[in-house]
Amino acid sequence: LLESWSSLDTVESNFRPLVVIELAKGTKEETIEWLTKRIVDKKANGGAQLLIKPLVTENGVENIYLVGASHLRLLLGAESVGLVKECSDNSMRTFTYSSRKTFKHFADDNHNFLTMAECQYIIKHELENLRAKDEKMIPGYPQAKLYPGKSIVRRLLTSGILVQIFPLHDREELKKLSHSWYGRVKVGYQPLDDVRCYFGETIALYFGFLEYFTFALIPMAVIGIPYYVFAWEDYDKYVLFATFNLLWSTVILEVWKRICAILTYRWGTLLMKRQFEEPRPGFHGVLGINPVTGREEPVYSSIKRQLRIYLVSLPFVCLCLYFSLYVMMIYFDLEQWALDYHKENESNFSSLMLYVPSIIYAVVIEIMNRIYRYAAEFLTSWENHRLESSYQNHLILKVLVFNFLNCFASLFYIAFVLFDMKLLRQSLATLLITSQILNQFAESLLPYWLQKRYNRRMKKRTYSKKTDTDLSLAEQVNMEKDMGTYLGTFDDYLELFLQFGYVSLFSCVYPLAAVFAVLNNITEIYSDALKMCRVYKRPFAEPTANIGVWQLAFETMSVISVVTNCILIGMSPQVDALFPDSKMDLVLTVALVEHLLLAIKFIMAFVIPDKPRDIQMKLAKLEFESLEALKQQVRAFQMQL
Amino acid sequence: LLESWSSLDTVESNFRPLVVIELAKGTKEETIEWLTKRIVDKKANGGAQLLIKPLVTENGVENIYLVGASHLRLLLGAESVGLVKECSDNSMRTFTYSSRKTFKHFADDNHNFLTMAECQYIIKHELENLRAKDEKMIPGYPQAKLYPGKSIVRRLLTSGILVQIFPLHDREELKKLSHSWYGRVKVGYQPLDDVRCYFGETIALYFGFLEYFTFALIPMAVIGIPYYVFAWEDYDKYVLFATFNLLWSTVILEVWKRICAILTYRWGTLLMKRQFEEPRPGFHGVLGINPVTGREEPVYSSIKRQLRIYLVSLPFVCLCLYFSLYVMMIYFDLEQWALDYHKENESNFSSLMLYVPSIIYAVVIEIMNRIYRYAAEFLTSWENHRLESSYQNHLILKVLVFNFLNCFASLFYIAFVLFDMKLLRQSLATLLITSQILNQFAESLLPYWLQKRYNRRMKKRTYSKKTDTDLSLAEQVNMEKDMGTYLGTFDDYLELFLQFGYVSLFSCVYPLAAVFAVLNNITEIYSDALKMCRVYKRPFAEPTANIGVWQLAFETMSVISVVTNCILIGMSPQVDALFPDSKMDLVLTVALVEHLLLAIKFIMAFVIPDKPRDIQMKLAKLEFESLEALKQQVRAFQMQL
Repeated sequence: LLESWSSLDTVESNFRPLVVIELAKGTKEETIEWLTKRIVDKKANGGAQLLIKPLVTENGVENIYLVGASHLRLLLGAESVGLVKECSDNSMRTFTYSSRKTFKHFADDNHNFLTMAECQYIIKHELENLRAKDEKMIPGYPQAKLYPGKSIVRRLLTSGILVQIFPLHDREELKKLSHSWYGRVKVGYQPLDDVRCYFGETIALYFGFLEYFTFALIPMAVIGIPYYVFAWEDYDKYVLFATFNLLWSTVILEVWKRICAILTYRWGTLLMKRQFEEPRPGFHGVLGINPVTGREEPVYSSIKRQLRIYLVSLPFVCLCLYFSLYVMMIYFDLEQWALDYHKENESNFSSLMLYVPSIIYAVVIEIMNRIYRYAAEFLTSWENHRLESSYQNHLILKVLVFNFLNCFASLFYIAFVLFDMKLLRQSLATLLITSQILNQFAESLLPYWLQKRYNRRMKKRTYSKKTDTDLSLAEQVNMEKDMGTYLGTFDDYLELFLQFGYVSLFSCVYPLAAVFAVLNNITEIYSDALKMCRVYKRPFAEPTANIGVWQLAFETMSVISVVTNCILIGMSPQVDALFPDSKMDLVLTVALVEHLLLAIKFIMAFVIPDKPRDIQMKLAKLEFESLEALKQQVRAFQMQL
Repeated sequence: LLESWSSLDTVESNFRPLVVIELAKGTKEETIEWLTKRIVDKKANGGAQLLIKPLVTENGVENIYLVGASHLRLLLGAESVGLVKECSDNSMRTFTYSSRKTFKHFADDNHNFLTMAECQYIIKHELENLRAKDEKMIPGYPQAKLYPGKSIVRRLLTSGILVQIFPLHDREELKKLSHSWYGRVKVGYQPLDDVRCYFGETIALYFGFLEYFTFALIPMAVIGIPYYVFAWEDYDKYVLFATFNLLWSTVILEVWKRICAILTYRWGTLLMKRQFEEPRPGFHGVLGINPVTGREEPVYSSIKRQLRIYLVSLPFVCLCLYFSLYVMMIYFDLEQWALDYHKENESNFSSLMLYVPSIIYAVVIEIMNRIYRYAAEFLTSWENHRLESSYQNHLILKVLVFNFLNCFASLFYIAFVLFDMKLLRQSLATLLITSQILNQFAESLLPYWLQKRYNRRMKKRTYSKKTDTDLSLAEQVNMEKDMGTYLGTFDDYLELFLQFGYVSLFSCVYPLAAVFAVLNNITEIYSDALKMCRVYKRPFAEPTANIGVWQLAFETMSVISVVTNCILIGMSPQVDALFPDSKMDLVLTVALVEHLLLAIKFIMAFVIPDKPRDIQMKLAKLEFESLEALKQQVRAFQMQL
């Protein structure tokens, strides 16, 4: 039966495997039969109309299946996911099968019109939107309940029948990409367009942001170096540096929006409509009619979701924040206690005791972070967001606030409660440098080592000296299925966000932070690239038009940094000495400067357009065309009456 | 020749005059001939394809012309201006002639499908977009140069040949409207939908905002009254009042956006596309191709405009602001000098001298305001904005900043430099109440008197006792052409904006301000309604989707008021007494509270959606349909290949 896969019109002889489905060992035959039938079944019958083949290895069939699709099916899928491609006249348009000939590089025999990443994205989309019809449960597993409209793949995953779905690497392409990306020492930009073709827009945009951010930090770093070299401690130089930093951070965030628009316009994702995203696989509800599209899909009350967010999630997050602050206070108490103990009984044991609070605190923070992350994921999933993007935004917001507090609360406490600038500078430097070294180790040395070990193991297993590109399909699948899963750009952005915090929040206390950030980011690009290409399974491409809630997060951080820097400058002894008579005048001056800086920031953000003019024009043109088309459409409709 | 006006297919027998064109006395015959030919000429020949007739009065032809259009022409015009009307299925859609039958209340013999205001708007639009072809000048006036693409009507106006264009009142409708609007004493909402039908969206939205704003001020007023009655002076009550005010002002501005969306969705303007606005008549440039629409129209470099804005207008505005502050300082010096003089030689003359500085200052401010207004209009016109909305926004921004400074600078000076709370309360009350009395006089008593005088004059002229509705067309036109011109909602919004400033900026010093504002606004609604219906010429309807830059202006004011109120509370002796030991702690506490309030404001603005959910859904649905239509369109196009 498995051999009798269908295609749209002809049985395709050259089956190209794109996506791997790994089922649990011992999955019942009837389940496999039902699943493959649903996958190959015609669209009209509620199937995905894809191609599927079992993977045959030396050990026989291992419940691993390869999914592909005919060229025609992929083109129709591209239309249904709303891909935007470049036309022959260089404009970007939503791809439709009927207008395929107007697109650049399209030819019926050119199977490279869609990139492999796009094809895999289409297949993922089709698989995830394979929904239960009248099945009450997954055949063979009565406990795995189904209801009309429920995503089958999601249920298979949650009930453990489906182990994983992942896209296959293209060894040839990967080799080319990794060579041009990180394989040689060169000065220049990353091959972002190639990265996008291979890994999709979300990942390419992360690397674009990382590169842009690194370049943007260079002026800060260059200005920061003389402060260290000449040990400048004059207040006016600090004020100058901090002011430059604050305005600069506004400018770079505004300019990023423009660059992001340029990139995503070229990649077509700027034009993809967010409104018509299909509901995310985890979304559940009673099957109803979507009032926007008029299509049948699960419907869930928006009020219920709001209630869950504001009555459950929000109080929970606040409680966690309070708890985290409480733990921090205990840490400072412990620290003080250890110091007192050491003073009283100076011994080897007591000096060892000095380190105990920090270690306990670090461990507790790490544990809290992990527990909180699970809780946040559970809560956000329970909020039942209809769109993946909305789910992600709510998750990011939750985790972000907690991480911000965990990372910076102790620095804030040192700066604004203990007023200990020396300790602040020292803590800041320690935190920044340790976190960078730890990250570099976890992201660059560890992967290197893992990769080396893996290669050895692979070679032992296959008893051969084949290079990666010479591997047979079965060998490749077996190797890739055991690789780690890349969990999205979340942690990478979070790292950058916290780094931005270290650089900007207390920049006037420690101007060298930008230098360390630049050095770190340069190696970060290479280690992240290596990680993407060699350490992890290939991730599915995800179209995206911007860095989403991260833009807001960075902007909020830059507003907070205006406040902190103004206070820090106000507290410095040099500025203090300027107002010998009245501390009031000092505080009022600082407050005035702070408000002026904030006003300038907001005016700048308001004045700098978010999209370059030519992109604005192109978008306006497309909107105009769509309006004209609607008129034409109505006219044609009227003719028939 | 004037009788031979054309129509689309048949000569319409029932010519309904909609718009009046008044030419200067003694305009050359060849000019009139050319203009009427251009107005009646077919669209294909570059004409407006309208109907025109000279007005014949007892004194013969007086160079006054009536413009109308056939029903068919108006429907086609509605399509070209992109009117949005309600369909039979209650959805709002852009009107097209071919889809006319899908619209509610449409019938080929129903000439009331378009409201009179819409018809007049269409005619105005067509007249203004009557552009020169190969004419080098206006025939008969070699000094009135033309170039291809120049708006003819605009050139006629600037060279004084065309005195004015205005829409005619509909006496029957007006009587009905004024009766339901202000004619009877009643408690209830204004008939906003009727106002919109008669005067258009911009004016209806102003009255909607005025009404909403009045209702929104009631809670503030109610809470403010006991402060006056019981002479509450406890700091905690003031803090409570100020905090309520600050959060309330954020809420009302956010909720207004939602109400505005509901109103403008119902009126169809929320869906009208801003991008495809035709260039404003005053816009000039080399004839080129609009890259968005592909149509021929004047093109002007955006960089040149930016240069004009930032290198000329911005410095000029800053200079004016500086000058205004300088004048204020001279005023305070004069005041001080007069006070000293009075102390030294106490005499009748010296006590009279006390009033001299205020009078001089008031006169100088008024003069400065007027000169500045002209300069701002000239500069904004010179900036050569392509769209009327963009022109208006830049003009409003310029005038707003200057008026804000002129009105509030002296109050700021008294509050934060002189630290004289008593004087502040006194000045605030004086300013608020005087300005309201003056405005009420200028807007309610003066119009009443003018109207009375006018009626007498009219009756003398016509020697009859006809009521308004019985007037002949010639009499009506003659009466209306001499009425004042309503210059737009600018001054009305400005008045509300300054009132909002008085109420919110120093609310904790003078809680009674909201009470006066509410009382004022209730009479304001009636006097403004009277003004619109009886005093001024009917204005052309202007579609608009929101109150534009005023929303931003009110929001900025509410942010500024957080800062001022926090400072005022911090300066009050009661709060001062709470921190007897350290003034520092006081200032720091105030700063902390201020930042918290600002943070809450921004979070609230972020969390409250700008459009109600059902409007969001309707918009999403329309966008989805337009996308589907584009696909269909492309498909149909492909079929032909």
